[in-house]
Amino acid sequence: MRAGQIQYSFYTFQTCFRRSLCYSKPVSNKSRLGVLGSGKGSNFVAIANAITTGKIPAEVALVLSDVESAGILSHARARKIPAKFISPGKFRTKLDEDAERAYVGALRKARVDLIVLAGFMRVLKGEFLRAFEGRIVNIHPSLLPSFPGLEAWKQALDHGVKETGCTVHFVDAGVDAGAIIGQQTVPVLNGDTPETLHQRIHAAEHELYPKCVAAIARGEISIVGRRVIWKKN
Amino acid sequence: MRAGQIQYSFYTFQTCFRRSLCYSKPVSNKSRLGVLGSGKGSNFVAIANAITTGKIPAEVALVLSDVESAGILSHARARKIPAKFISPGKFRTKLDEDAERAYVGALRKARVDLIVLAGFMRVLKGEFLRAFEGRIVNIHPSLLPSFPGLEAWKQALDHGVKETGCTVHFVDAGVDAGAIIGQQTVPVLNGDTPETLHQRIHAAEHELYPKCVAAIARGEISIVGRRVIWKKN
Repeated sequence: MRAGQIQYSFYTFQTCFRRSLCYSKPVSNKSRLGVLGSGKGSNFVAIANAITTGKIPAEVALVLSDVESAGILSHARARKIPAKFISPGKFRTKLDEDAERAYVGALRKARVDLIVLAGFMRVLKGEFLRAFEGRIVNIHPSLLPSFPGLEAWKQALDHGVKETGCTVHFVDAGVDAGAIIGQQTVPVLNGDTPETLHQRIHAAEHELYPKCVAAIARGEISIVGRRVIWKKN
Repeated sequence: MRAGQIQYSFYTFQTCFRRSLCYSKPVSNKSRLGVLGSGKGSNFVAIANAITTGKIPAEVALVLSDVESAGILSHARARKIPAKFISPGKFRTKLDEDAERAYVGALRKARVDLIVLAGFMRVLKGEFLRAFEGRIVNIHPSLLPSFPGLEAWKQALDHGVKETGCTVHFVDAGVDAGAIIGQQTVPVLNGDTPETLHQRIHAAEHELYPKCVAAIARGEISIVGRRVIWKKN
């Protein structure tokens, strides 16, 4: 490894951590995921399916939502995965301090290695980011750095691009600005409406996100500067 | 056609124009291209080849360069296409007023319908843009709106994107900001250097640019807002 290169192998430190906690249990090398979502949870379902079929060596330890009625919670419960609504508090686009503490506490208690944002509609701030630095990933419905922010598919359509797509990236303090793990392209067609384009991007997300989470869980990626290197590329 | 939609069929107005000039000559429906370049001219060669093989119903009426020794001029002359160096004047990144006038004059004299920028390293300004409004196209080595400006392939590599490409767009007063005609994606590979990535983007440009110029020459595109609609998409 070169200087400045970070090797991602969550299960290594997790294995050590668990060994100290429950010494008599057989040591698993599966990553423990914490999934956060505010909506239907289709990306969560895609990842959970990929775990079930053995494509991702991980388990979902906890699903959290800021929306009590969110589909993602029902999907998780139907799969017997611990799922919890935690009130986001008094703000509209971020967690308030109490909420932040509650989310971080729940995720720590569930001993998650990697936080997977799957349509979580709140920006994560300082305290949360510090607690899980470099271990939070998100999916965004455009080829970043084009069209960060809300309704990226609509932004793309209005701008008149011919190719858009989706991006899985690490989360840092910027908006949709962290190091890019993977991207998948989606063509814009003549007759596209925001809805048809969004649908096609969503389908691409369901392929890309499990692939990226699998690579992280297998310790197959490393970071040099802003570039994420895949060992098996 | 809906309101706000512009139909591109250069040869229509060109046919009328030529008819008034040279009434006795058989009327051709070929677009007349004016190509501007500062370098090797590989995009010019790709377009000229596509014309030769009948893929673009056009002829190159004139090639201009701001660099006396530019390869694009030799390529044009080898093909018996009128080719001319016109001094860009006193500025480094744009044409000065005299040069602007000389470029516009030469292109008008050659009765060009469409101006094709092929590696022309100067920004076109007011007078030139007004003279050929909506009839100037450019190719840029990124998926715009990501990475406008210089060395877009290097910007893409430094940013760590996994997909980049090239964009053919109309030229307006912004930098690489006009309506997008076509885009082609190019993956970024683990081992890429600026040079290897640039090379692969260049190869994509040589496919995309002739396709886009052909569609314009055939009158197959129209514009709605910022969206360029291809009739045969």
